Order: sequence, then structure tokens, then C-alpha cells
Amino acid sequence: MDIEKNIQICNLIDTYERLLTNKQRDILQKFYYYDNSLSEIAEEYGTTRQAVSDLIKRTEAILQNYELKLKLNEKYQEILSLVNDVLYGDFSEKEKRKKLNEIIDCVGA
Amino acid sequence: MDIEKNIQICNLIDTYERLLTNKQRDILQKFYYYDNSLSEIAEEYGTTRQAVSDLIKRTEAILQNYELKLKLNEKYQEILSLVNDVLYGDFSEKEKRKKLNEIIDCVGA
Repeated sequence: MDIEKNIQICNLIDTYERLLTNKQRDILQKFYYYDNSLSEIAEEYGTTRQAVSDLIKRTEAILQNYELKLKLNEKYQEILSLVNDVLYGDFSEKEKRKKLNEIIDCVGA
Repeated sequence: MDIEKNIQICNLIDTYERLLTNKQRDILQKFYYYDNSLSEIAEEYGTTRQAVSDLIKRTEAILQNYELKLKLNEKYQEILSLVNDVLYGDFSEKEKRKKLNEIIDCVGA
């Protein structure tokens, strides 16, 4: 499995899982978090590997579409990076205040 | 018009408009941002006041459902309040660092 893609999908599941159906969320979690195989999931749901694979691909596309539109993970990364700069970075007081104001811009106030 | 509700819907439109269709977004903006009447919008779209009113109600429910699930506006308000405390509040350095860490919790890192 492509580890980078795996991490990206896990982040998308974390952020947008409440917009999925229970079935979509459960199957993606089994596959991506708990590393269940397509066959194991298919057996559990009484369906075929192909059907599980299709559902996973469709659900990934749904998650990626939410990120494309809301860009929450991108925004969260930006906020995290700004907060970490203020907490741990070697910046002047003025620069830190600038970064705090950038967080306000980021949440679109 | 109920001003408080108006502000709330405008905030929801700002946050989730990219999840609406163009028509849903345009009609809600005309109604809530530009204060067009149902009749004006109905005339522009060649439809009835009732159809416009129904579309607005349905779209408001969609927006409220997104907020119920993602709670972005709630989260943004929390982050804003924490950043403002750090920028302008009368807190010790230790308390400010605590508030910055709460922002990190808030974006779910």
C-alpha cells in the first residue's frame, strides 16, 4: 500500500467522516485504519471483493471532493504551522502577532 | 426579518457555499446578502414565490445539516476567541501557551 496516500485518506476520513454514510465510513476505516483486506471486508458484508473495492474508490472520491471544496485539511495544516511557530519558533513579538492575525484570516473572520 | 437568524444563515453561506449548487447559492445570496424579495427572485428565475421560498428553506436545512455535522462555524468562533485572548487578553505567558495548545486541539491534530 502507498503509505503517503494511506495517510492522506486517513486524514480525510478524520475530517469528513460525519458526511459519509455509516457503511462508507465503516468500510473505509476497516480498510485504511485496521488494514483489513478486501476479501475480509467482502466476507463480513456478504458481498464481493469487487463491490467493496468500488465502494472504497467511490468514497475516496467523495472525500477528495469535500477537501477540494472546503480545503479543511489544508487550512488546519496552515493553522497548526502558525500556532507551532508562535509556540516554538524563534520570532519577534511583532512577527508572532502577525502570525496570530494570519490564523484569524485563515478561519475567514 | 429576524436579524439574528439572518446573520447565522449568512455565516453558514460563507462557510459552506462551495457545497451548494450554483442556483442554491445564488438564490440564498440574493435573499440574505442583497435583501431581494421572494417576488423579485421568482421573476428573475421565471418561477413562483412559493418555489423560491421552498428552495430557500431546503437550502437552509442543507446548510444547517453541514454545520450540525462539521461544526465549522462553532470551531472557527472558538479559534477566533482563543487567538483574540492571546493577542489582546490580560493573561500570563503560561495561560497564553495553554490557549495556543487549545487551538491545536480544536483543529484536531
